[in-house]
Amino acid sequence: MSSTTSPPPLNRRLDPDARRRQLLEAGFEMIQTRPFTQVTADEVAKAVGVSKGLVFHYFPTNRDLQVAVVRVAAAELLSRLNVDPELPAEQRLGAGLDAFVTFIETQPANYLAVARSVGSDPALLAVFEETRAAVVDLILAAIGLAGDPPPGLRIVFRGWIAMVEESVLHWLEGSPVSRDQLLGFLQRAAAAMLPDALVTFARPPEAGVAS
Amino acid sequence: MSSTTSPPPLNRRLDPDARRRQLLEAGFEMIQTRPFTQVTADEVAKAVGVSKGLVFHYFPTNRDLQVAVVRVAAAELLSRLNVDPELPAEQRLGAGLDAFVTFIETQPANYLAVARSVGSDPALLAVFEETRAAVVDLILAAIGLAGDPPPGLRIVFRGWIAMVEESVLHWLEGSPVSRDQLLGFLQRAAAAMLPDALVTFARPPEAGVAS
Repeated sequence: MSSTTSPPPLNRRLDPDARRRQLLEAGFEMIQTRPFTQVTADEVAKAVGVSKGLVFHYFPTNRDLQVAVVRVAAAELLSRLNVDPELPAEQRLGAGLDAFVTFIETQPANYLAVARSVGSDPALLAVFEETRAAVVDLILAAIGLAGDPPPGLRIVFRGWIAMVEESVLHWLEGSPVSRDQLLGFLQRAAAAMLPDALVTFARPPEAGVAS
Repeated sequence: MSSTTSPPPLNRRLDPDARRRQLLEAGFEMIQTRPFTQVTADEVAKAVGVSKGLVFHYFPTNRDLQVAVVRVAAAELLSRLNVDPELPAEQRLGAGLDAFVTFIETQPANYLAVARSVGSDPALLAVFEETRAAVVDLILAAIGLAGDPPPGLRIVFRGWIAMVEESVLHWLEGSPVSRDQLLGFLQRAAAAMLPDALVTFARPPEAGVAS
């Protein structure tokens, strides 16, 4: 065990769970300013003050480390989106949207890297799919449709999330509209789509095929 | 030159442009049934009946070949989206939407691979960005706003395209709504957003910051 034969110079008393958490926190800190693909065992070791071997003990490859850091970021996103359940639906959706956009804004390089390259790795794609499904669950809960949403409503909100993501990423590249204009527009778009989606997708699919 | 020292068994008279086109057509054929990452010089050589060396003469690496095939697919998409300019705006948008969805439907594995992994390669990302910008141009032309669209309108349509893409990819995984229901919904969503976008983004950004 590298942790006993060459003890790290700092924090040597941490138990495995705490150590793992500490390494992931250092990685999460790094993706605030650069894409996850640039998080390496070497850099995390330096940031925490432990040996590279110790990092590899927890994450056998750099890619394992990177996927684990993306997973931490996804959990952080979900926790921020899970706003006060006592708020009325519209405010809850608005607060969630604001939190989502803030999350993208605080780590744009990393968010872009994740959004545009998850398909290159099955482990990353799994994190992406789980996270997007969980965001849809939060939205459905916010608008009071968590139990048994009409078929198709998940598709609509997956689409809306993709629209938010793409709009914000494009807006961050430098655009002549304000944050409030963009968020207001995106929230009204969701509100405008919802009644149509509820009506359209309440019908069985056969009814639509004939038209 | 491999083409003179070991002439391919077939089509040996093709000039370089025609040969290149022939190789790319074989690659494009392949991505109808599998992701572009599975297109290789070896397989293209077999499909066309030439030596692998000849394919590498035109595309030095498998990745060069794959990016060129994705570029062909992007050009094909744009040509299909460019529907009859004499149609009224609504029908033109509807026909373009249908063509876009048909394009995704005919090569779902490849479309998903491209959409989810372009960020892993700068050359691929460039094709993606150029194509998405060109699709926005086509939409703006379809609705008669090609000249000088209000600031922010490009963002809105980039967002709408992302919504269409994401909805369709999710729908293809097996969903209880019909194609007509989905396309009707997506087109009405665009129509519902547009007036709001025109009003919201016609204001200078400062006006929105205060709210």
